[in-house]
Amino acid sequence: MGGNAAATETVEISGHLMDSGVLARVLDDVLDYGCDYVIEKFDVGRTHDDESYARIGLSAHEPSSLQRLLMRLQAYGVNPVDPGVAVIRAVEQDGVFPDDFYSTTNLETVVRLDGQWVPVEHPEMDCGLLVEGSRVRTIPMSDVKKGDKIVCSAGGVKVVLPMRPHSATVDDAWHFEFMNSDVSTEKPQALLVRQIAERMREVKAEGEKLLWVAGPAVVHTGAAPAMVALVQAGYVDVLFAGNALAVHDIEAAMFGTSLGVDLSKGRGVEHGHEHHIRAINTVRKAGSIAAAVESGVLTGGVMHALVTARKPFVLVGSVRDDGPLPDVYANVIDGQRAMREHLRGVGFAVMVATMLHSIATGNILPASIPLVCVDINPATVTKLADRGSAQAMGIVTDIGLFLEQLAHQLVPDYA
Amino acid sequence: MGGNAAATETVEISGHLMDSGVLARVLDDVLDYGCDYVIEKFDVGRTHDDESYARIGLSAHEPSSLQRLLMRLQAYGVNPVDPGVAVIRAVEQDGVFPDDFYSTTNLETVVRLDGQWVPVEHPEMDCGLLVEGSRVRTIPMSDVKKGDKIVCSAGGVKVVLPMRPHSATVDDAWHFEFMNSDVSTEKPQALLVRQIAERMREVKAEGEKLLWVAGPAVVHTGAAPAMVALVQAGYVDVLFAGNALAVHDIEAAMFGTSLGVDLSKGRGVEHGHEHHIRAINTVRKAGSIAAAVESGVLTGGVMHALVTARKPFVLVGSVRDDGPLPDVYANVIDGQRAMREHLRGVGFAVMVATMLHSIATGNILPASIPLVCVDINPATVTKLADRGSAQAMGIVTDIGLFLEQLAHQLVPDYA
Amino acid sequence: MGGNAAATETVEISGHLMDSGVLARVLDDVLDYGCDYVIEKFDVGRTHDDESYARIGLSAHEPSSLQRLLMRLQAYGVNPVDPGVAVIRAVEQDGVFPDDFYSTTNLETVVRLDGQWVPVEHPEMDCGLLVEGSRVRTIPMSDVKKGDKIVCSAGGVKVVLPMRPHSATVDDAWHFEFMNSDVSTEKPQALLVRQIAERMREVKAEGEKLLWVAGPAVVHTGAAPAMVALVQAGYVDVLFAGNALAVHDIEAAMFGTSLGVDLSKGRGVEHGHEHHIRAINTVRKAGSIAAAVESGVLTGGVMHALVTARKPFVLVGSVRDDGPLPDVYANVIDGQRAMREHLRGVGFAVMVATMLHSIATGNILPASIPLVCVDINPATVTKLADRGSAQAMGIVTDIGLFLEQLAHQLVPDYA
Amino acid sequence: MGGNAAATETVEISGHLMDSGVLARVLDDVLDYGCDYVIEKFDVGRTHDDESYARIGLSAHEPSSLQRLLMRLQAYGVNPVDPGVAVIRAVEQDGVFPDDFYSTTNLETVVRLDGQWVPVEHPEMDCGLLVEGSRVRTIPMSDVKKGDKIVCSAGGVKVVLPMRPHSATVDDAWHFEFMNSDVSTEKPQALLVRQIAERMREVKAEGEKLLWVAGPAVVHTGAAPAMVALVQAGYVDVLFAGNALAVHDIEAAMFGTSLGVDLSKGRGVEHGHEHHIRAINTVRKAGSIAAAVESGVLTGGVMHALVTARKPFVLVGSVRDDGPLPDVYANVIDGQRAMREHLRGVGFAVMVATMLHSIATGNILPASIPLVCVDINPATVTKLADRGSAQAMGIVTDIGLFLEQLAHQLVPDYA
Repeated sequence: MGGNAAATETVEISGHLMDSGVLARVLDDVLDYGCDYVIEKFDVGRTHDDESYARIGLSAHEPSSLQRLLMRLQAYGVNPVDPGVAVIRAVEQDGVFPDDFYSTTNLETVVRLDGQWVPVEHPEMDCGLLVEGSRVRTIPMSDVKKGDKIVCSAGGVKVVLPMRPHSATVDDAWHFEFMNSDVSTEKPQALLVRQIAERMREVKAEGEKLLWVAGPAVVHTGAAPAMVALVQAGYVDVLFAGNALAVHDIEAAMFGTSLGVDLSKGRGVEHGHEHHIRAINTVRKAGSIAAAVESGVLTGGVMHALVTARKPFVLVGSVRDDGPLPDVYANVIDGQRAMREHLRGVGFAVMVATMLHSIATGNILPASIPLVCVDINPATVTKLADRGSAQAMGIVTDIGLFLEQLAHQLVPDYA
Repeated sequence: MGGNAAATETVEISGHLMDSGVLARVLDDVLDYGCDYVIEKFDVGRTHDDESYARIGLSAHEPSSLQRLLMRLQAYGVNPVDPGVAVIRAVEQDGVFPDDFYSTTNLETVVRLDGQWVPVEHPEMDCGLLVEGSRVRTIPMSDVKKGDKIVCSAGGVKVVLPMRPHSATVDDAWHFEFMNSDVSTEKPQALLVRQIAERMREVKAEGEKLLWVAGPAVVHTGAAPAMVALVQAGYVDVLFAGNALAVHDIEAAMFGTSLGVDLSKGRGVEHGHEHHIRAINTVRKAGSIAAAVESGVLTGGVMHALVTARKPFVLVGSVRDDGPLPDVYANVIDGQRAMREHLRGVGFAVMVATMLHSIATGNILPASIPLVCVDINPATVTKLADRGSAQAMGIVTDIGLFLEQLAHQLVPDYA
Repeated sequence: MGGNAAATETVEISGHLMDSGVLARVLDDVLDYGCDYVIEKFDVGRTHDDESYARIGLSAHEPSSLQRLLMRLQAYGVNPVDPGVAVIRAVEQDGVFPDDFYSTTNLETVVRLDGQWVPVEHPEMDCGLLVEGSRVRTIPMSDVKKGDKIVCSAGGVKVVLPMRPHSATVDDAWHFEFMNSDVSTEKPQALLVRQIAERMREVKAEGEKLLWVAGPAVVHTGAAPAMVALVQAGYVDVLFAGNALAVHDIEAAMFGTSLGVDLSKGRGVEHGHEHHIRAINTVRKAGSIAAAVESGVLTGGVMHALVTARKPFVLVGSVRDDGPLPDVYANVIDGQRAMREHLRGVGFAVMVATMLHSIATGNILPASIPLVCVDINPATVTKLADRGSAQAMGIVTDIGLFLEQLAHQLVPDYA
Repeated sequence: MGGNAAATETVEISGHLMDSGVLARVLDDVLDYGCDYVIEKFDVGRTHDDESYARIGLSAHEPSSLQRLLMRLQAYGVNPVDPGVAVIRAVEQDGVFPDDFYSTTNLETVVRLDGQWVPVEHPEMDCGLLVEGSRVRTIPMSDVKKGDKIVCSAGGVKVVLPMRPHSATVDDAWHFEFMNSDVSTEKPQALLVRQIAERMREVKAEGEKLLWVAGPAVVHTGAAPAMVALVQAGYVDVLFAGNALAVHDIEAAMFGTSLGVDLSKGRGVEHGHEHHIRAINTVRKAGSIAAAVESGVLTGGVMHALVTARKPFVLVGSVRDDGPLPDVYANVIDGQRAMREHLRGVGFAVMVATMLHSIATGNILPASIPLVCVDINPATVTKLADRGSAQAMGIVTDIGLFLEQLAHQLVPDYA
């Protein structure tokens, strides 16, 4: 915070700052608004009944950024130490506020008018503050009339934070907070794909291995060709999966085009057909997936690509498996041991479309290995994180399009 | 069904064929297995208490296809008129069935042994049939031993369809059927995108208009540039939306890069910031979105692209709107009328990421106009279909990646 | 269709009736409207390129029911053989149709006026038909004015069914149909609970066993006491589950009240605490769950109730398991065999809150055993049905409230 | 922290404590484990590049609780100031750890052996620490053998927190945190219902009003009778809704039993029937819902109950509405104004099964009014919270069972 800051302000906040996480959000917002901060004073509540107090110096290159940050921070009960007096401007056009109107929160608010703190009537968010004589009330944008007096900027306005008692009573249930739910379907996904591709290239450049954990939706969504391209280009060093991924991959390779249930036509995959059980029988007869590749019985798909590229895979069974394939660990504890063996040298893990195997891998991964979990079902991503895999990045998206785009990013001549 | 069919068989089915839809599924499967059919006899149940009877001739080029189709059809209770006798082979390898083993359903089944119909013990799906003396039971693949006698092909096996009484009793709740739930996240999505792009090109080639209905997730998922490219390339003739899409698009254009809440960094869109309400105020001051473009206040985004390309849009308000923007119909009935005006000449409708406006458009669209509904939430797609828009094609996928891929397909130089 | 039918009409339909399932829906609607039918003629398309034709006699006690059924059936392209002439009435009040107004579909429609079939302009559903001279167009209810001439009843109106070619081309993707998606969250759930309770009583009365398949959400949602009450009242004869249900049940019994993470306070269950791993260690030390009950280490919960009531359970492991508990089958194929052993005598299966074990059980259940699958996640219910368990009834609801209500129904003094 | 604490320990943590929220979680866990804390020292990082440091005194009545808390806190990088030396015990039984075994995190960990800090090989969560000579590695419970030396208690073990740089780079996307996602379907729901009932009774006792915001699923899930009972018992003072709730409620009252689409049979509600449009026409003819009640046309359901009990409702239209009913505000801004009028005196808001109207109400509610949002769709609950309604309590559950249970709690003679 140096001499080139065009605008500064000192703010303060008191309350249960330590156990509410509110301070983390305040400081995040300061940076988000392109401003900077110095924590000038911090009196910490010693026990969980004590309040804390913080005084923070804010600075910005743009006075307008600072004014808007000040309004923003009021949503957390952060107010300027010197609130100043309210700036009041007249509306020039029906239904339009002055440019720098004070945009309200839904919290209790007071305005400094003529040396008095006047409480705002009817708190409502995203409104303006209308001054009528010695009273102040919220007014929606569409109701404002030419000549109305509106509070502008953040000066002379204070927000009163509601008390949040922290005590172990039945009322605890009311403390739910889900403001920071970060597993979202509303993210710029194409950008995330590029970031993941970049990370994967770095990991390979550093000589580390890429671990994939995948479910059968890779096949059902038509993404097997993209996955095959990634294997061939060296971006899959080891695969963890269950019986189902391998079975449906092999089933598609064996029957996908000879019969009418046809991925190339965009029809849904029928369950209940006998193809999968016949595919399993064929591989059991060959003895293993590798043997089926060698003998020419299996000529395409993800498992074929792994065998051909001499990349290892660990398939661990589950109680819902048919067959299973001869390569599948029927004993899950043996399967966990085999997975642990293959974690050496892994620098990054990509988990797509499988809750069971993603959680299983999350359970044995050290926290130092970053991972990305991709699923169209938000619950899978949330569950993984809830179980302690804090290094997880979650993406709620379509597996088929995700793998298609990832292949586009990583495989030069991928069509 | 001509002389070049290598294999034929006549099958029959009886039951409540008319009101169960089972016949439709049977005939679909015949085609899926690359076979053909002729309905040779059809005795229809006259009233809803009567059973119907059908005799169907099947033909195939491959005897093996026909054998597998016959097994498949038994899941519906369709059996050969002449069931023949069971072919029994000995297992040659532990845990492996003969190649042409009969793959079971979970229905009551009988096998013809020595002129007797023997009931199968413990029906279970995806198993083999083990013959022990005069008894037959299911056996899982992993339990079979060398020398075990297994029923092969479909000859000599009949399935007994469970009775399905159709009566208006309390028991009706038990008739739920969701076997054909076709709104799925497990489809080859990349292929669907190509089909939609193809359809859009055809519609334009025929001189018809493309209608888009879109929600704010288009902006939140970072897909606005893809949408802008589609507008500029002429693939958006008219847009129906609400206040939110336009607001967030304009907010991103006005504040997206100047402040820290930054789409380009892949961070989540913060709600509660005052940007959106300030963006609305700015456009209200200008008088309209077009005026904001003209005056240079609005210089990018989807709405800017539409104004620049002189493409119309209809924005209809909702009770949750802030502002709203001056272009928004606050009266929803007036909004519906405006939407109807713009349906003339539309040949195809694309609905992305909005349940409210998709249903609203579905309500006023003639059935002759095909539409595609794209949403990451299966409920939106299902709701649209449930409301009578039977011409709907539903895709459950990520909006951001979908629009990115669509732009790649349709806009030659889209990066 | 007897002499006491107050109204009759003969309708006809042609098209690809066999492979579209449309006839099933038509006949369902006839019954839903309280009417009756006789199929008078049915010319079946022999091959999949041929159209079929049906003529159906309809009867009803109420002429108004029949009139509304006739309108309803037009949505499928079913029209009266003798369409008659249109009845036209004048509107008496702005914005209000005559009582028996013809309610439109969104299909191409023609109206018989002065001996001519006049096409309706701008087909739109849920509108009226406005006659202006020799033209007819749709008009929304809110736009109608006093004196407008509106078509009433179903006479003189025909709907033209769009062609639906059935051919194995790329266009097949457009045939998605999800009108009959029957896994719904919008069902009268309290009624369903009563029906399931009734079924369970019947099964017990017939001396058959009740199989439960359950996931750990039974514990997390606070439903363990309800489940214990059901065990004690004799409504759980055998339980299939995984390691997780037993672990969290035992963890709650051992630590649930001594530490702060407290189900009784309505707080979320924390993952990552070491309680569960310590609970597993304790039971391993005892040797088995039964031994832990005997030795007094385990004194409450679902597993305790089962041991005490001498009811068997089969716990099958998965790759994500910690521990596992000594009772858990680490080998999943052994686990499947143990599950099969316990299917004898089962008359009804209840599956709650577990996709993995529900599908596993569905795989080995004969179709003759009815089952109900209860989950808050629609995907679980759909997946089960998709895999061939057609005897499944699916309920998308909250496990906690479901089990609470079921216990209220079945256990007389359940609080 | 007084003389009756049986066990105390001083711990320390350094890092980006201010902007990570980690301290809040640490202090929450202290209370959850039934322990207490005093913050003894807190050196705050002044700028966002500086680290902070905290020293915290912990106390507990039970030494074992404290030991387990210490292990727990290591997941956040909180270590004892005086780590002591590792306690090592021999395993007495294959596959079973000593009772007080140290349960691992997946973070980098070091163990104090013979005066040396030895790094743990292969960090993995929920394991034990096996000492082999001068090396320490994780070992899963199932792999431990009699005689193995295992680290016990938390003494002599330190966790090394991974660095978490907070800088505004592209890498920010990797900072996703969703560990505290509190909108969960895995809560003890029956308890929550009791808490809400309790709160509603208190609000009424204080003379404040109960506001309900409801969607049409109230009718579709069969919960209308429960809702009617709540109205009659005085627990609904004002209702906000859209056209759809009122239409389907009135449709059910008018046609629910006369036709076959019958809520009482547990069948799904059919869309596309003309009942709803005919119900609307009937009420429009009457002039208003109240007039329809008065004239005897409408004799049951939620809207009838409200009119009869003289409780106000505000119905605001949307672009997807048919009709609409004469009471519906077609102008959404007028509708918002009407809603604001009815907020006076409201002490508690219950929002069930409507995203649109819940968000609309959340937009205009002051933060001082607590609200509960109930929906089977987690997205609705999350969206409401994301928009700034931090006073929201979210429950993901089934509406039908929720209202049924709430009526049981609040209405003495509700069947």
